Amino acid sequence: MNYASPAGPISESTFRVRYAETDAMGIVHHSRYLPWFEIGRTDWMRQAGLTYAEFEAMGFYLTVVEAGIRYQKPARYDDLVTVRTWLAEVRSRGLRIDYEVVGAQGDVLVTGFTRHICITHDGTPVRLPEVLVQTLERYNV
Amino acid sequence: MNYASPAGPISESTFRVRYAETDAMGIVHHSRYLPWFEIGRTDWMRQAGLTYAEFEAMGFYLTVVEAGIRYQKPARYDDLVTVRTWLAEVRSRGLRIDYEVVGAQGDVLVTGFTRHICITHDGTPVRLPEVLVQTLERYNV
Amino acid sequence: MNYASPAGPISESTFRVRYAETDAMGIVHHSRYLPWFEIGRTDWMRQAGLTYAEFEAMGFYLTVVEAGIRYQKPARYDDLVTVRTWLAEVRSRGLRIDYEVVGAQGDVLVTGFTRHICITHDGTPVRLPEVLVQTLERYNV
Amino acid sequence: MNYASPAGPISESTFRVRYAETDAMGIVHHSRYLPWFEIGRTDWMRQAGLTYAEFEAMGFYLTVVEAGIRYQKPARYDDLVTVRTWLAEVRSRGLRIDYEVVGAQGDVLVTGFTRHICITHDGTPVRLPEVLVQTLERYNV
Repeated sequence: MNYASPAGPISESTFRVRYAETDAMGIVHHSRYLPWFEIGRTDWMRQAGLTYAEFEAMGFYLTVVEAGIRYQKPARYDDLVTVRTWLAEVRSRGLRIDYEVVGAQGDVLVTGFTRHICITHDGTPVRLPEVLVQTLERYNV
Repeated sequence: MNYASPAGPISESTFRVRYAETDAMGIVHHSRYLPWFEIGRTDWMRQAGLTYAEFEAMGFYLTVVEAGIRYQKPARYDDLVTVRTWLAEVRSRGLRIDYEVVGAQGDVLVTGFTRHICITHDGTPVRLPEVLVQTLERYNV
Repeated sequence: MNYASPAGPISESTFRVRYAETDAMGIVHHSRYLPWFEIGRTDWMRQAGLTYAEFEAMGFYLTVVEAGIRYQKPARYDDLVTVRTWLAEVRSRGLRIDYEVVGAQGDVLVTGFTRHICITHDGTPVRLPEVLVQTLERYNV
Repeated sequence: MNYASPAGPISESTFRVRYAETDAMGIVHHSRYLPWFEIGRTDWMRQAGLTYAEFEAMGFYLTVVEAGIRYQKPARYDDLVTVRTWLAEVRSRGLRIDYEVVGAQGDVLVTGFTRHICITHDGTPVRLPEVLVQTLERYNV
């Protein structure tokens, strides 16, 4: 599980930790970073010029086939955190996105990745549609 | 916000509190009882003879239009809790379900209700379908 | 369950709906509004001049003893929503906060309230501490 | 990210998918498997003879430092799923647990692992306490 160094453009999504995201250890529950990664790739795609909502409305999903997360430091309620997101790899049928969650001082809290393949709404795997490939090529230079 | 005394059959759903359901206060987060109520009504409908999954597959949803919850005692990680569920009211276009969450000693932790109306999958409100009304009448005596 | 018309200052918290907040109906799951209300009161208290994190660090919790929610219109993934929050009632031992979730066009999606009492970290109910009462009096005029 | 073949005892935790665990794709949201893994290790430890709640009450946490998940098939609302859990590795300061989520027909839906280190409640990393090591040695043969 290696995290690539960011090559292309990086999006930054900043928000405060919700109380509902903490657990009895007093810190953010480890499952809660996956929804944060999702915020990250939503923002990355919006910046790239094709929102995931639009992409979905075209009849596709970028379904998650693998995820990996390394936890270095905890985040706590009301902390200001930033998810840094970049495209790590593109293939004909899928892509990998990498993430870094940093605290207000810029210290790395969590790193991770998600791998996706493209499927239609009935679940059939397909090649990445041209509209997505072009968006990625135009943006991720 | 009154909770009716149970009249008809009561279902009981028993499970352990998940760590992910706790918050930094060391107790179950107050939002987590709504998914528990949902477990309760899933079990109640299964007992009544028509699962909600089947009902949904027929083209309907029982969408939630109102919910109320009173918190009396906290639940904690690994506690064995039971959701007691009963049908409180049926009208031509909707119904109300009441809930009680009790601890392992039978002490009441939380009470609540949800009101539902029936809609089709495109969001149109409709009367409760005959299949549901008959199921409720047959069961809730 | 009545929702008071806002009297004092109203905070507005705006954010996008996360994919993880949706359910198989394609809309935001009804339990997800309680964490949004929590964002609302976090922001309201910050505006009032005493963050809830600071208040908690003083040894107190504003624990939720009751919640009520009315669902009028659904919110969907990537929608821009705003939680409007105001103080509805203050008593010696507790308070009520009211909320309105509105969509990007200002249409009301959900209304609700939470009632809170003040407890110490070991769970003992206490009067609202002077620091909180003064903050509320200074702000909520 | 390799998943070891189970060597020692395997616990099985069976439950139904909650509606609140689904997302707008109509399937279980990919973040929801981490809380399921947590149910798995809670049950595994209970079977081993030391509940995680007891272990925590002794002043320790097994905090998650890494997690990996591979998604093979989706789970849906009301599906009966089983989390199979086993101890994959023990070291002086940590351990790895592996998981397999299977459907009602025994088909593998998801595989994954979590790595943990032992810390005290103030966050200091420590060697696995004797009580835990002995429990694991006695059980995991």
